[in-house]
Amino acid sequence: MEIEDILNKFQNGSIRALGRAITVVENRYDGADLILETLNKTTGKAHIIGFTGSPGAGKSSLIDSLVTHLRKNNLKVGIIAVDPSSPFTGGAILGDRIRMIQHSTDKGVFIRSMANRGQTGGLGMATKDTIKLLDSFGFDVIIIETVGAGQTEIDIVKAADTVTVVLNPESGDDIQAFKAGIMEIADIFVINKSDLAGAGRARISIETSVHESKPKNNWLTPVIMTSSFKTQGIDELWDKITKHFDYLTESGELIERRLKNIREEVIAIIEHKIKNYLELKLNEDISLNAFKRAGEKDITSRVAANEIFKGL
Amino acid sequence: MEIEDILNKFQNGSIRALGRAITVVENRYDGADLILETLNKTTGKAHIIGFTGSPGAGKSSLIDSLVTHLRKNNLKVGIIAVDPSSPFTGGAILGDRIRMIQHSTDKGVFIRSMANRGQTGGLGMATKDTIKLLDSFGFDVIIIETVGAGQTEIDIVKAADTVTVVLNPESGDDIQAFKAGIMEIADIFVINKSDLAGAGRARISIETSVHESKPKNNWLTPVIMTSSFKTQGIDELWDKITKHFDYLTESGELIERRLKNIREEVIAIIEHKIKNYLELKLNEDISLNAFKRAGEKDITSRVAANEIFKGL
Repeated sequence: MEIEDILNKFQNGSIRALGRAITVVENRYDGADLILETLNKTTGKAHIIGFTGSPGAGKSSLIDSLVTHLRKNNLKVGIIAVDPSSPFTGGAILGDRIRMIQHSTDKGVFIRSMANRGQTGGLGMATKDTIKLLDSFGFDVIIIETVGAGQTEIDIVKAADTVTVVLNPESGDDIQAFKAGIMEIADIFVINKSDLAGAGRARISIETSVHESKPKNNWLTPVIMTSSFKTQGIDELWDKITKHFDYLTESGELIERRLKNIREEVIAIIEHKIKNYLELKLNEDISLNAFKRAGEKDITSRVAANEIFKGL
Repeated sequence: MEIEDILNKFQNGSIRALGRAITVVENRYDGADLILETLNKTTGKAHIIGFTGSPGAGKSSLIDSLVTHLRKNNLKVGIIAVDPSSPFTGGAILGDRIRMIQHSTDKGVFIRSMANRGQTGGLGMATKDTIKLLDSFGFDVIIIETVGAGQTEIDIVKAADTVTVVLNPESGDDIQAFKAGIMEIADIFVINKSDLAGAGRARISIETSVHESKPKNNWLTPVIMTSSFKTQGIDELWDKITKHFDYLTESGELIERRLKNIREEVIAIIEHKIKNYLELKLNEDISLNAFKRAGEKDITSRVAANEIFKGL
């Protein structure tokens, strides 16, 4: 398919064209910019929800239950699974796969795995561009699933309007570890597997943390108990997610937040360009010569850095 | 003191001038470059040893025992404590403090904490510059203590000639977590608190990992059992550290490794310069205008990034 052909079919609602468009954009094939520029004006309609949590937290089952709930309400859902441990990306146990197959025959659900894009360093950019395509295509809700480990994952989940952090009652240590990075960006906490012992205690612990931390705005981060096994709490989760979206819209924070995200995206692209440019420059004679002289202690590392920097 | 005065006294062996010189260099005060350029040729003599491990691994006590051992052999030791949990940086329990006081009255031991330089983003550079001053001053051995959590700490400990990773028998989970980042840069493993149960099992586990991993060179990473409480294994530790240094010297790897480290240091300084430059540029009209138009979806984030990048 030519790019114009992809765009035409995309705009006529072809799921296949959507898949092709994502492939072009995430691999930065020729035409990627044309696709993004053509569709740019039609983005910004969807509610983007990020889900993060440690691998054992049961994110995927929870998302699965939520998707079933959303489909009952006739909402179209796009899912981007960045989590390499997610069943959506293929490393599934049988039960998860069966549920997946159920959704994958539903035209109102589109699932895309980004698990293999880690090496290129462009994972964040590829994910954000994919969000734009799903948004433009007309999905009402876009779910991004990540594991909240590294800076890349935090950057990705921050691109969401609503960030949901999923924990389970047994992950006492995880909660501590999570506090460092991901906790402060949570808009909603979910204690999944709430039928396990310790769920109540985990809830109190997180609620205490929420109350003790400085509120960043007028939204008090709720803590919800769910069980995807019993499909308990899914109504409440969706209720809180929509309430958060209402809060964002009414307070004007949605516009602010999306502007901030676009700014950060632009900066990330610039930094990527600089990195590529620098890599080329470091192999040129002026740089190699400066490295050599610094190695021989003719000049200090700082003088060498200055010489190369001036030549950029 | 004027910079010339500091340099004069430094070169005459004044510990106080050394302390002042480090303060100038780590804060990038006027004269920092003059100090580094003056002393540059006299660096490269010391054996630089990095120690890293999780906070409970007993690094500080181990280093303390090693320093006592080195002093018996009349070796002068400079210590840079980057680990915020280290007693060398002030967060000490009483016993550690007492040992510290003992060393701090010894003119053959110089201790410098870098714990408060995290916010500036220049921790790595400040640490590397401090190593140069200690080296030039005439310390035979320079010890860098970090906790091996983030990329900054890994970068710092990689600046050493010999990287020692300290674990304790109870840190089964830590070992798993450590494997990801720091394990592959270890030249020596130490299982500290070897009197605790599980020490033998931990040793086997690490030795198995060492044998299973691809050797990066002809040095087979040894696993040593120590107990700083009983001062057991300290002789063996020092023996392995000097054997590693001999290996580096004889194989030519020392020169190679130090050249690589200088190269990485130069690149880090350039990246820091670029970051500062970019921050200024992002507040100029051309950038603000591009952000605004991307926010209004007149242009895509990529087009905005291109416009700003062209103006750099």
